[in-house]
Amino acid sequence: MAEPDIFYILGNRVRRDLLSHLTCTECYFSFLSSKVSVSSTAVAKHLKIMEREGILRSYEREGPFIGPARKYYDIAIAKTYVATVTPNLFWYRGLDLGGEVIKRTEIDISRIPDEHSSLLEMIHSFHELSVELEKVLQALKAVETRRDALMKEIKERYLKEIGDMTQLAILHYILLVGEATVDELSDRLNLKEREVLVKARELDRFVPLIIKDGAIKIDEERLKQKLGGESDAGED
Amino acid sequence: MAEPDIFYILGNRVRRDLLSHLTCTECYFSFLSSKVSVSSTAVAKHLKIMEREGILRSYEREGPFIGPARKYYDIAIAKTYVATVTPNLFWYRGLDLGGEVIKRTEIDISRIPDEHSSLLEMIHSFHELSVELEKVLQALKAVETRRDALMKEIKERYLKEIGDMTQLAILHYILLVGEATVDELSDRLNLKEREVLVKARELDRFVPLIIKDGAIKIDEERLKQKLGGESDAGED
Repeated sequence: MAEPDIFYILGNRVRRDLLSHLTCTECYFSFLSSKVSVSSTAVAKHLKIMEREGILRSYEREGPFIGPARKYYDIAIAKTYVATVTPNLFWYRGLDLGGEVIKRTEIDISRIPDEHSSLLEMIHSFHELSVELEKVLQALKAVETRRDALMKEIKERYLKEIGDMTQLAILHYILLVGEATVDELSDRLNLKEREVLVKARELDRFVPLIIKDGAIKIDEERLKQKLGGESDAGED
Repeated sequence: MAEPDIFYILGNRVRRDLLSHLTCTECYFSFLSSKVSVSSTAVAKHLKIMEREGILRSYEREGPFIGPARKYYDIAIAKTYVATVTPNLFWYRGLDLGGEVIKRTEIDISRIPDEHSSLLEMIHSFHELSVELEKVLQALKAVETRRDALMKEIKERYLKEIGDMTQLAILHYILLVGEATVDELSDRLNLKEREVLVKARELDRFVPLIIKDGAIKIDEERLKQKLGGESDAGED
């Protein structure tokens, strides 16, 4: 898929909502349809567009209950897109995630002078900055490749050990955004705020959270303590 | 403007072409219209959409010849957008360019283990990777802020010293993409390939280029030699 097509896909709120749900878990049609606030006809149309553009793939599978096979969807690409729009620059690029990635890089633009006396000096500095940009993009690719693989492991482990989809959805969202309000989670998961709080407290039994003033985030301090405890236990 | 709206704007080829022309120089309506391959009605519609969304602003100014004032357009935002779409991650963010930016940063993900024995370890590593992601985004903002300011200077200096808009358009494009084919430039500038080559050779008198096998790029070696010569001359 060429880069520009992704912008078309991301330019629609319903499609963004569908993608967002699909990153948390494999979804079948009626589940997806229940999570967004448009008709099932509209959902079907958006899913079809995304499948045609190669963003999604679908497959049929037996559901957990007796009945016809269900159509499931998942995301078929793993890319990070970057675009700059200013009065002087316009470019965009898609980075394929995966494969061997760099582990460490230093970005240094301190050597670029603030003032330039000639056109050629400016052009040389622009080239040097573009070299640094390339390093930034490789670092972005590396970090996102690692985060993608790790989120996959987290999802699999959570489902195997705890198995609650709603808790996982809360964890997934908090990991992605850093801190989520109960309001946001309520909208996103189509749950009452009270239900979000109940589920967040259940999640907190496995993953330490700070639930305070209507916002939820990972409790880094308690997480570190717990991890310290784990390795201490290992040393006995 | 909220981030998602930019995806809608970028999701259309004509709008991308218009933005691309606008980053090189201020443009009036009929100039823009002559550069893209759709009707002037369609161009007017796309310009109106982008003005409504706050991407463009317009102003009236006297043209160089006697006659009514012309409507000019320029880009009203300076942002870099990042979006990741994978089976496990979906997020996007707009970075405001400008202001104080970092000069140097080290991205280091070598401390993240390849294997994790517990869910909490995975969550801790994901958090560490997100901290590195934030550093990458600040580096991206820094590089693009500097490139934006420098491209502005390059455009102004070129117009003042040399004054040829077509040469500037070639230089602008080559600086952005690194290497351009004559075909691409011919499409983009609405010139015959022969005319592109003539203009590229004129540009080469001021900015050293490699024009070879239908492709054009900056000649870094000759540029460095010329810059060396400049500073030698300064030492006499």
